[in-house]
Amino acid sequence: MVRTILVLGAGKSTSYLLDYILENSKKENLQMVIGDLHPENISQDISTHPNCNVVALDIFNDQERGRLIESSSIVVSMLPARLHIKIAEDCIKYKKHLVTASYISDEIAALDKEAKKNGLVFMNEIGLDPGIDHMSAMEIIDRIRYEGGKMLLFESFTGGLVAPVNDTNLWNYKFTWNPRNVVLAGQGGAAKFIQEGTYKYIPYQKLFRRTELVDVEGYGSFEVYANRDSLKYTAAYGLQDALTLYRGTMRRVGFSKAWHVFVMLGMTDDSYVIENSEGMSYRDFVNLFLPYSPTDSVELKLRHYLKIDQDDIRWGKLIELDLFNSSKKIPIKNATPAKMLQYILEDSWTLGKDEKDMIVMYHKFGYEINGKKKQIDANMVALGENQSHTAMAKTVGLPVAMATLQILNKKITTPGVQIPISQEVYKPILSELKSYGITFKEYEVPYLGYNPDSIGN
Amino acid sequence: MVRTILVLGAGKSTSYLLDYILENSKKENLQMVIGDLHPENISQDISTHPNCNVVALDIFNDQERGRLIESSSIVVSMLPARLHIKIAEDCIKYKKHLVTASYISDEIAALDKEAKKNGLVFMNEIGLDPGIDHMSAMEIIDRIRYEGGKMLLFESFTGGLVAPVNDTNLWNYKFTWNPRNVVLAGQGGAAKFIQEGTYKYIPYQKLFRRTELVDVEGYGSFEVYANRDSLKYTAAYGLQDALTLYRGTMRRVGFSKAWHVFVMLGMTDDSYVIENSEGMSYRDFVNLFLPYSPTDSVELKLRHYLKIDQDDIRWGKLIELDLFNSSKKIPIKNATPAKMLQYILEDSWTLGKDEKDMIVMYHKFGYEINGKKKQIDANMVALGENQSHTAMAKTVGLPVAMATLQILNKKITTPGVQIPISQEVYKPILSELKSYGITFKEYEVPYLGYNPDSIGN
Repeated sequence: MVRTILVLGAGKSTSYLLDYILENSKKENLQMVIGDLHPENISQDISTHPNCNVVALDIFNDQERGRLIESSSIVVSMLPARLHIKIAEDCIKYKKHLVTASYISDEIAALDKEAKKNGLVFMNEIGLDPGIDHMSAMEIIDRIRYEGGKMLLFESFTGGLVAPVNDTNLWNYKFTWNPRNVVLAGQGGAAKFIQEGTYKYIPYQKLFRRTELVDVEGYGSFEVYANRDSLKYTAAYGLQDALTLYRGTMRRVGFSKAWHVFVMLGMTDDSYVIENSEGMSYRDFVNLFLPYSPTDSVELKLRHYLKIDQDDIRWGKLIELDLFNSSKKIPIKNATPAKMLQYILEDSWTLGKDEKDMIVMYHKFGYEINGKKKQIDANMVALGENQSHTAMAKTVGLPVAMATLQILNKKITTPGVQIPISQEVYKPILSELKSYGITFKEYEVPYLGYNPDSIGN
Repeated sequence: MVRTILVLGAGKSTSYLLDYILENSKKENLQMVIGDLHPENISQDISTHPNCNVVALDIFNDQERGRLIESSSIVVSMLPARLHIKIAEDCIKYKKHLVTASYISDEIAALDKEAKKNGLVFMNEIGLDPGIDHMSAMEIIDRIRYEGGKMLLFESFTGGLVAPVNDTNLWNYKFTWNPRNVVLAGQGGAAKFIQEGTYKYIPYQKLFRRTELVDVEGYGSFEVYANRDSLKYTAAYGLQDALTLYRGTMRRVGFSKAWHVFVMLGMTDDSYVIENSEGMSYRDFVNLFLPYSPTDSVELKLRHYLKIDQDDIRWGKLIELDLFNSSKKIPIKNATPAKMLQYILEDSWTLGKDEKDMIVMYHKFGYEINGKKKQIDANMVALGENQSHTAMAKTVGLPVAMATLQILNKKITTPGVQIPISQEVYKPILSELKSYGITFKEYEVPYLGYNPDSIGN
């Protein structure tokens, strides 16, 4: 019997997801239906595939959405997270499993009972981050516990970056994901984590100055800035007794120090609109945030204001962005500073058609076993193929696709609203991801932690 | 015939207001009714005065509030601004004039038509700032215009400080007003102003590093940081064509640079709650915002983090607050960083019973007349008598009291929701304030502005 997978939303990040389903469609007897607002953007390879139907769908059209969900075997939503709830409610109504790569919202969490009652798997956070981070971390944590270890420390970092071969700018950065999220990163509250049992808080104005450094074999050095809430998964991972919990975002070393310039200037603010933003030059945009002077240049004012020497690499980074150009204009009406900055950055940081991105993930697991403190570091690097087949699309889309097929094939059966932290889920998926080159390298390293005894050793 | 003035809310800032009304009560045939939630806090001098009745009033008791308003001749609300709307609606209903020292909210502004239809004066923003600033500025702006001048520049600064005689700490600051407002000052959006026709924006993370300096004859130097929106009164003052508009808050020189330490640490954040705040020592509070270290002291970590040398005066300021004391505890449950910081500051910065505060206001008016550019600076300094009769209470309360009597005596008659910017209002009140020692000194100074031509001169 043919099983129908309904994929809602076929944006940039879905190339690998769609390919995977179609590649398996013959063997597994699958039909894929894609519901998307702009089906014309879907590539020909996909839309003309014999096992694929493309439907123009406005997700707010209750009748049409309900009809598609009712006639499917399982639903995958790759739409923005805020649009999931109506889909999830339909999945309850028509008794369909649901898979998303998004964070569980309170609204979705509230459907847990209903999902369980109907034997439905509502699998969320099964992309890259969240997703592969959960699975790869839980595999090692479960193993440490199985062997009798007690977790002391868990740190986890992920970065979406540009591949070394196309790493051609001073920032060592290009946009491989939603640029708006990059500009707004870290806003909306202090970052919170625990080190050696002590709560620590970092405000936005210092977030990019409190980085940690980490090396990845074969790929050099990276830096990490703290994610907003590192304690979010404490209970889910069973880490209530761990002394150190820290989650962060990875960049190449030096990125954050230069980004801090934008933060201190006020350019990342998305809360108010700039007068006369439309047609404003890059240079005038910068000058908005500097004191008035009849004689001094915008350049000197900025250097003095933020105490940047002329041979500071940050200065080179600003120049590279053409930030002081008075001919280049920002064409956006009623734009916030953040939107104007994003425009300027996209001008420099857009990934070329044949350029490759890179995903890096790094975990640290500190634990005590038989009275000894030990540490395992694990890391994963994935490289993209080109602008459409990015490592980001691969690492987000493949776990979603694999989970969908596993649920359809009744390999994953535990019902309820969940994230991929149980063996039932992560074992088969991590194993299959290996065949796609998504593998973690593990290293036994001395346990350092942050306390005096281990520092002394 | 006896006229009844209903005063709602008799908090700290109302001492001079109540005294003024009672002092004039015999001559002017006034009866004062005070409605307050805690009438037991009102001083005996006031409550036992033959022309005063004190009533225990819960402002949310619609019936009791309505009854009091209905039986009064005019209503003065000194309650927090968010409580004004119900009072204002009653004033429309019972056709009573209303006086407040608060900023006009959108809700209050919406009553303008109704107030006008009923011939009612709804006078707002008639305290110090807003209040005396409006009146004193408009008096000079109107004069400049009357003489044929064209306004080029308007800057206006106000500060609530400690009097020189009691200026005994390194910060040159004590709380003379709501401490919470001081801790949260500058949050909630970038500061916005115009210099020489150019818009300028300062984010919170730089607000306290972009100060202007100003001297007040006989009182030394002060610094100014920008208020959130300097353009708020552009239309009301008729300054649409002025090239420079800047409003700010005054502090003694060096305050802001040290305050910036709290901003950068994240201690002024009121958006989240600290785990285990109750019983936390001052020292542990500071350490929340610093990197973990098994060996380095909180002191050294802070100095290194914010690059403060041991002989920097900011360091002395932090020590003076006892910020690194591990015995002193903060007793507040579920406190935000801002609330914890406020507790520590109140420990050091509370005005003593017999200590005096100081109000400083400074205006700059740049204008062009007969082809020449000129400038008038005007300043006012008011000193308090003691903890209960502060310069703050005087400069807030007297204009309110005076306006109330002027309205009652039909000297101020123009109806509608308004602020004190018309001659009808500011002339008699500024004149009467002089007899209370609240006077502005004016100085003709060279017009500097911020443009190349005038700098060259």
